[in-house]
Amino acid sequence: MSSHTPLTETHVEDHQTEWDDDKLHEECGVFGVIGVTDAASFVALGLHALQHRGQEAGGIVTHDEEHGFQSQRRFGYVRDNFTSKSLLETLPGSIGIGHVRYSTAGSKGNTAIRDVQPFFGEFAMGGAAIAHNGNLTNANQLRRELIGRGAIFQSRSDSECIIHLMARSMGRTIPDRMKEALRQVEGAFSVVAMTRSKLIGVRDPLGIRPLVLGRLGEGTVLASETCALDIIGAEFIREIEPGEMVVISEEKIESFRPFEDVKPRPCIFEYVYFSRPDSVLGGKSVYEVRREIGRQLALESPVEADMVCPVPDSGTPAAIGYSQQSGIPFEMGIVRNQYVGRTFIEPTEQIRNMGVRLKLNVNRSLLKGKRVILIDDSIVRGTTSRKIKDMVLEAGAAEVHFRVASPPTIWPDFYGVDMPTQEELLAAKMTEEEMREYLGVASLKFISIDGLYRAVGEENGRDPKNPAYHDAVFTGDYPIAPKDMIEQGFKPKSAAE
Amino acid sequence: MSSHTPLTETHVEDHQTEWDDDKLHEECGVFGVIGVTDAASFVALGLHALQHRGQEAGGIVTHDEEHGFQSQRRFGYVRDNFTSKSLLETLPGSIGIGHVRYSTAGSKGNTAIRDVQPFFGEFAMGGAAIAHNGNLTNANQLRRELIGRGAIFQSRSDSECIIHLMARSMGRTIPDRMKEALRQVEGAFSVVAMTRSKLIGVRDPLGIRPLVLGRLGEGTVLASETCALDIIGAEFIREIEPGEMVVISEEKIESFRPFEDVKPRPCIFEYVYFSRPDSVLGGKSVYEVRREIGRQLALESPVEADMVCPVPDSGTPAAIGYSQQSGIPFEMGIVRNQYVGRTFIEPTEQIRNMGVRLKLNVNRSLLKGKRVILIDDSIVRGTTSRKIKDMVLEAGAAEVHFRVASPPTIWPDFYGVDMPTQEELLAAKMTEEEMREYLGVASLKFISIDGLYRAVGEENGRDPKNPAYHDAVFTGDYPIAPKDMIEQGFKPKSAAE
Amino acid sequence: MSSHTPLTETHVEDHQTEWDDDKLHEECGVFGVIGVTDAASFVALGLHALQHRGQEAGGIVTHDEEHGFQSQRRFGYVRDNFTSKSLLETLPGSIGIGHVRYSTAGSKGNTAIRDVQPFFGEFAMGGAAIAHNGNLTNANQLRRELIGRGAIFQSRSDSECIIHLMARSMGRTIPDRMKEALRQVEGAFSVVAMTRSKLIGVRDPLGIRPLVLGRLGEGTVLASETCALDIIGAEFIREIEPGEMVVISEEKIESFRPFEDVKPRPCIFEYVYFSRPDSVLGGKSVYEVRREIGRQLALESPVEADMVCPVPDSGTPAAIGYSQQSGIPFEMGIVRNQYVGRTFIEPTEQIRNMGVRLKLNVNRSLLKGKRVILIDDSIVRGTTSRKIKDMVLEAGAAEVHFRVASPPTIWPDFYGVDMPTQEELLAAKMTEEEMREYLGVASLKFISIDGLYRAVGEENGRDPKNPAYHDAVFTGDYPIAPKDMIEQGFKPKSAAE
Amino acid sequence: MSSHTPLTETHVEDHQTEWDDDKLHEECGVFGVIGVTDAASFVALGLHALQHRGQEAGGIVTHDEEHGFQSQRRFGYVRDNFTSKSLLETLPGSIGIGHVRYSTAGSKGNTAIRDVQPFFGEFAMGGAAIAHNGNLTNANQLRRELIGRGAIFQSRSDSECIIHLMARSMGRTIPDRMKEALRQVEGAFSVVAMTRSKLIGVRDPLGIRPLVLGRLGEGTVLASETCALDIIGAEFIREIEPGEMVVISEEKIESFRPFEDVKPRPCIFEYVYFSRPDSVLGGKSVYEVRREIGRQLALESPVEADMVCPVPDSGTPAAIGYSQQSGIPFEMGIVRNQYVGRTFIEPTEQIRNMGVRLKLNVNRSLLKGKRVILIDDSIVRGTTSRKIKDMVLEAGAAEVHFRVASPPTIWPDFYGVDMPTQEELLAAKMTEEEMREYLGVASLKFISIDGLYRAVGEENGRDPKNPAYHDAVFTGDYPIAPKDMIEQGFKPKSAAE
Repeated sequence: MSSHTPLTETHVEDHQTEWDDDKLHEECGVFGVIGVTDAASFVALGLHALQHRGQEAGGIVTHDEEHGFQSQRRFGYVRDNFTSKSLLETLPGSIGIGHVRYSTAGSKGNTAIRDVQPFFGEFAMGGAAIAHNGNLTNANQLRRELIGRGAIFQSRSDSECIIHLMARSMGRTIPDRMKEALRQVEGAFSVVAMTRSKLIGVRDPLGIRPLVLGRLGEGTVLASETCALDIIGAEFIREIEPGEMVVISEEKIESFRPFEDVKPRPCIFEYVYFSRPDSVLGGKSVYEVRREIGRQLALESPVEADMVCPVPDSGTPAAIGYSQQSGIPFEMGIVRNQYVGRTFIEPTEQIRNMGVRLKLNVNRSLLKGKRVILIDDSIVRGTTSRKIKDMVLEAGAAEVHFRVASPPTIWPDFYGVDMPTQEELLAAKMTEEEMREYLGVASLKFISIDGLYRAVGEENGRDPKNPAYHDAVFTGDYPIAPKDMIEQGFKPKSAAE
Repeated sequence: MSSHTPLTETHVEDHQTEWDDDKLHEECGVFGVIGVTDAASFVALGLHALQHRGQEAGGIVTHDEEHGFQSQRRFGYVRDNFTSKSLLETLPGSIGIGHVRYSTAGSKGNTAIRDVQPFFGEFAMGGAAIAHNGNLTNANQLRRELIGRGAIFQSRSDSECIIHLMARSMGRTIPDRMKEALRQVEGAFSVVAMTRSKLIGVRDPLGIRPLVLGRLGEGTVLASETCALDIIGAEFIREIEPGEMVVISEEKIESFRPFEDVKPRPCIFEYVYFSRPDSVLGGKSVYEVRREIGRQLALESPVEADMVCPVPDSGTPAAIGYSQQSGIPFEMGIVRNQYVGRTFIEPTEQIRNMGVRLKLNVNRSLLKGKRVILIDDSIVRGTTSRKIKDMVLEAGAAEVHFRVASPPTIWPDFYGVDMPTQEELLAAKMTEEEMREYLGVASLKFISIDGLYRAVGEENGRDPKNPAYHDAVFTGDYPIAPKDMIEQGFKPKSAAE
Repeated sequence: MSSHTPLTETHVEDHQTEWDDDKLHEECGVFGVIGVTDAASFVALGLHALQHRGQEAGGIVTHDEEHGFQSQRRFGYVRDNFTSKSLLETLPGSIGIGHVRYSTAGSKGNTAIRDVQPFFGEFAMGGAAIAHNGNLTNANQLRRELIGRGAIFQSRSDSECIIHLMARSMGRTIPDRMKEALRQVEGAFSVVAMTRSKLIGVRDPLGIRPLVLGRLGEGTVLASETCALDIIGAEFIREIEPGEMVVISEEKIESFRPFEDVKPRPCIFEYVYFSRPDSVLGGKSVYEVRREIGRQLALESPVEADMVCPVPDSGTPAAIGYSQQSGIPFEMGIVRNQYVGRTFIEPTEQIRNMGVRLKLNVNRSLLKGKRVILIDDSIVRGTTSRKIKDMVLEAGAAEVHFRVASPPTIWPDFYGVDMPTQEELLAAKMTEEEMREYLGVASLKFISIDGLYRAVGEENGRDPKNPAYHDAVFTGDYPIAPKDMIEQGFKPKSAAE
Repeated sequence: MSSHTPLTETHVEDHQTEWDDDKLHEECGVFGVIGVTDAASFVALGLHALQHRGQEAGGIVTHDEEHGFQSQRRFGYVRDNFTSKSLLETLPGSIGIGHVRYSTAGSKGNTAIRDVQPFFGEFAMGGAAIAHNGNLTNANQLRRELIGRGAIFQSRSDSECIIHLMARSMGRTIPDRMKEALRQVEGAFSVVAMTRSKLIGVRDPLGIRPLVLGRLGEGTVLASETCALDIIGAEFIREIEPGEMVVISEEKIESFRPFEDVKPRPCIFEYVYFSRPDSVLGGKSVYEVRREIGRQLALESPVEADMVCPVPDSGTPAAIGYSQQSGIPFEMGIVRNQYVGRTFIEPTEQIRNMGVRLKLNVNRSLLKGKRVILIDDSIVRGTTSRKIKDMVLEAGAAEVHFRVASPPTIWPDFYGVDMPTQEELLAAKMTEEEMREYLGVASLKFISIDGLYRAVGEENGRDPKNPAYHDAVFTGDYPIAPKDMIEQGFKPKSAAE
């Protein structure tokens, strides 16, 4: 979701300060269900399970014959907004979709409720609501053209282009209009949409963002991840395939292939960090992939030490794998405060300065005099990693060896990931040795790109001619040209080199 | 503002019960200012002064070069939402417009924040925001056509048609597009709009709703009523004329006449009830017109009595006039509880049953044994009037004579007034004598339509060939055919007779 | 209620700015009912009718056998806090009392919820809750003694002394303990209290603050004013007499006289400003007394003019009287914005500077070229009076004559009235002529103290030997020595002279 | 904290449904600091680190010369209430104390803000505030006596007795009064208190609840656990000894022994579950003790299996120990949803029925066909354990072996722990084999009481003559007779047998 138009409607109540969590972030999660009683409750639960994909805001749309389309959109967590009886009663019907969104870096505190999905459009043949995970790379250009032809945009979201393209389509059904619209957009899109009687799921040809299909009794479910099926007791059927559109009614599921065939390249970072460890992605348990990354790391970059400590919670599976492979004991040297929320509200300077201590603490007596292998999933700006290392050394650790469960993060992502600018990425500015010095650790090793591919099941590592995944943040190899960003001055790898 | 599209986004927090206040209600107030420091504060004050024209929600848009267009929209009173420093700081700039809206009968508790004006549109040549007071009578038809041509409506408001018509116009400037758009709409509209550098005011050819022009230092102001000029210390210059468009920059005020000339017919109910008594309308003080209505009433329908008592606060000016003309003392026989808000939040049944007692009380010792002339501005459903009469009689009054400062309210209004259905209007179902019996009063008299016209300065009363005001609620004489309503089954007078 | 102890628990959410309303204020209203179904709803309505006696906070206590004593206390208006079903359901029972409080000058924004009444105490024979209107003049001394003997105060309210004195009493019943406690306090107190099965009402020997008794079906009601009986449809029986205690069960009403007899001296300011015009006090309609003050003023201080205008709403009854006596027409030259609440929340500097314009506006065309008699109930600091006069003159009035419906306010009150320090009182610093000049009016006249007494029915005016009312704010004649204040340096009249 | 008095002031806004988390809960955490700039920020951070000891409400009191004692108390998390600049600015001073509380079983949703600590008392020699962790076992008796002698209780907390005993003491200093008061109470108490210039810490003679001393620059800190020292960067000095009182000024720390000497018996459940794993208690790292419990469990109750899975997060350290000792791999077979808060607000029935799924999910592909050892810290009612086992079996696990890191929980605790009634405790109703069948697992083993003692460092296990810890929940051996509960009908072990 990128920002274009000059109207801003700030969410004023949200005087919050984001944690310096120094991670890449998935920008959205989507969910839809059809053929169940009180669809809204299931959508709420599904979004709750997908909360890690977006914490800023969420929305639900449902439909029944008596009340038509009903919508609710809110800032904040699903558990705080979408679980109360009084709210869910405003969302009757057996069909519904929902969306959670992350606040993008540029728009922190700048989001208005009108930017919150699902978006709704009324067409001559009836209404439709859509929820979009991913980012369109030609949205600026499309927006200019649509405005030139009389479209009124209500949000700053790239996703709104899809609704306007549908409105201008000559297609006679909403699925036809959606096909026509999505053929004009470029970038990453996993879309869940609904009409009065149909639930629609689409995944872009490369399948960059995930989307899965499940069964709940007589009903059918679409969700970004399988963990959202588990929470409602739904059975996982299969993934929506890259380039596939499914049109689901209470009676049947139809599958279409509206796009030209290309080799899929799902985003490899879903395994590294975005997806929940209990989700299954591409037939592989995310937890087991992460544990395998840890094993590969131990094979690639062994070191003598007394314990393996994860940076909780994201480094835990890889640390378990590293420990299992190396035989060095796995220990909880760092403990996470479970009461840290997404934010503190307007903290004083003194509190802000406590930084990482507000969420992490070390086990002093455990670390004292020990050689410690720290495992984290990634290094982005490096600021948090340095603070954690400081805490470990202040606790009396003899040595700190840093092992990172992803290759160096060098390039920006344009397909729906929130991350700092390239200038802020530590690995974009320093060699590995410079990073080691900057972090002040005895050794620093990232998993190799081939090791990462091996962990996700590619035995021969990455095939540079034909890579199986979207991995541009590590390689600069963009599967879709980021037109909007090039227009704004971004230089892709070949141009940059 | 009428409601069309099937998407509903209920304002859930608003579990409120409206007072049975049994009045006609103005649906909106508009305000705009250019050429002043911190325009938003002035817009907030102007809207506060216009709060009687709409209590449900309000919005403000401003613009400056650095931040572009900024918007805030909120449910509730201006004083509770738009006076805080933290909010007004999000609305920088020397130009701004604002809108307050009343919740229409059909949509109570059904309004979403996306229905709250000002509306914003981004065009090829830049953005524009508009605030509309009035109601379009061909909005349904326009909406269907626009949707058929690919427009995506975001609200259920008729006012949004104007933005979409502008978006589709080939006009090269925003004022040109607005002219073209407004030539296609029918009904009542007093519009205040803004671009990055221009403030625009337009009044429909009949001038049904008011709009005035003022000067504040170097700046220029547009407002629904003069009381909104007074609160900020602005000087009243003149009314915007029916059919006039003014385009105001920091340098100059240009006046256009984009519509065909017709004889103006401003709404006479602005004098009877809608406008504040301290406003000046059509060159006449609203308070003095209402006092004159009271005098006319005393001339037309005298009665022997001990005191003249207004139903506070709306009946007060006419009661003063009646007292002055008749020589019968003016007394506060009924007292209003100043702490009654627009609503009680989720009251118990017991509290709801107290009804009118929650806001009015009688002066028992004053009324005891007395012959009382009660003066109210209008009778709509008659339910409240009956309860008030009961209170007065229970207090021991000897006789109650009811005098009404408007003719019987028989017909619906379609130009921006919120009122019950025609079936609920007491005067649409009963003769004057039947009403007197229903109300249980010793005598009941309404001012005549000619008496009302005399009070507003037409010495010869109403000219039936060429009436000077829109007075359809009394006469059934609609100056503009209410197309949307006829399509929905409404039968105008000639057809009904 | 005065403030002693050093613990402060600020109501942080209340970032509000008080209107410069430049009035004396009643500090509290009390209400109690026994023998009705769902007592809490009636208490809520009674407090709503008494809201003018205290707007900062309110509380209700009820009792039934199953749930025992239940309490709710809240900041803000009764209508916003105490009318919802969910809250009233937490207050079951057929007996209940309530209290509304005004924020005292010294403690604005400093009140904690623990300062909000009713107060509750558990004694060996069971619990009791009390609600107190008035102020104790020996509270500081009592508090010191009680603390010395081991009492733990939870609030900063003088009223809490009563509960501690009851706790230390050897009385065998709660009414006995209350008698013993109240014999030790000095000052003004109208108390409504409750045990599990009894409603108790007490008024201090001078009867400074009002308290009335009513009947509602089988039930019995106590309230500060009769308007609180009217709202629930209760019948007014009689006033609680000065020095009387009534103990009311579902079966009977017992009356006691626990104090030494003295000649009563109710507060005359209840007539001038505090009580609602629709209340009956001392057998006299408050509205009629105020109208009579206006007549006396017209007799004492006539002047040739074109109209009599009240400063709304408090000056209206006197203006009606002045007009009736003088024959000069009564007109609404000043109009009050009915949407002004108690406060604006954190207004910007620009908004704050608008001052009196935010709540009052003038009828320009009405005032232009006219000689105007302005009537207000009192002049306190004079700041608001001056601003109003400015507005009237700016509107083009030829002359402004100020008439005040009370004598000059020179002395502080210590019996439950919120007012500025003596240094801030205009009349304490200036002669009448100096005030006239300061205000910039053509003439300024206050009603005489004798005229005021005549208006309340004392045909011979004030008897200086034996005045019928507490009138110290005008005369400096304190019926009870203000011990706490003398200790803090206040010099009564004799000492001052 | 037990409940006595019949006044209830429900926290209405808190329509929440507690998770069925099926654990014992610590009831409070305390913190104090002296000699630092802006003490309140440090107190807030310390309470945030102690949030696991109480999530319902919290409070802070500070003092400085200019503003005296200042207090803030709130429902909800520290991070949501006590970190904002605007609130912390109301709490100036270099000395402060704070308290977090858990809602006790009997009073869920029944707590009023006046039950929230710290409590404050004003004595002849000045004010004092106290925060109490623990529970008094003779509070009912003390309360009756104090009320009989005229004390007014404001809360239903047993802790308030301490303030009233101090108020009645003849001691000349506050520390002296506190000594005298605490000699009269029985039960568990770790108290942090403050006067204008002194910070006081006391631990009951048995040292049941923890209390530690730290240094922060020139300042001194008291806290329930060392993790609260870590978060503010304070250095751990030592524990306050059982039976010790420390009186800390900016100049010095004085130590007193006001009680008779007895052999200490700190609560062993602090190691099992209450304290955070990163805290150090009795010289032992809590994490390492829990890991050692896991090792002892593996020695006592080995079983062949494919993996060791903790019930997150509380079972994790013991699972690591079990894995290390047994050589069976540690795996994350169960994943916790990090966005589960303490509660869902008013969830629908459908959502409530999802139960444990809302916070836990299983890794299906990992568990499929595997023999799984589940490790949890305790079994209380057994309801959650059964649901977790169901999830694991539904995921396809071949066998589930349950290992519990504490002995069977059979007896109630009366010293500050929130737990179900004895009737609800699974182990109080069933033998181990019956529990195994009820839970439906292949094997069920608890650590032995001797094994637990060995894990905390008692090499010879528990000495039944002279046990080193308070372990009554496992043994029924109460170190202090629970008088209040015996009075209410509780039968201790000897009586029960």
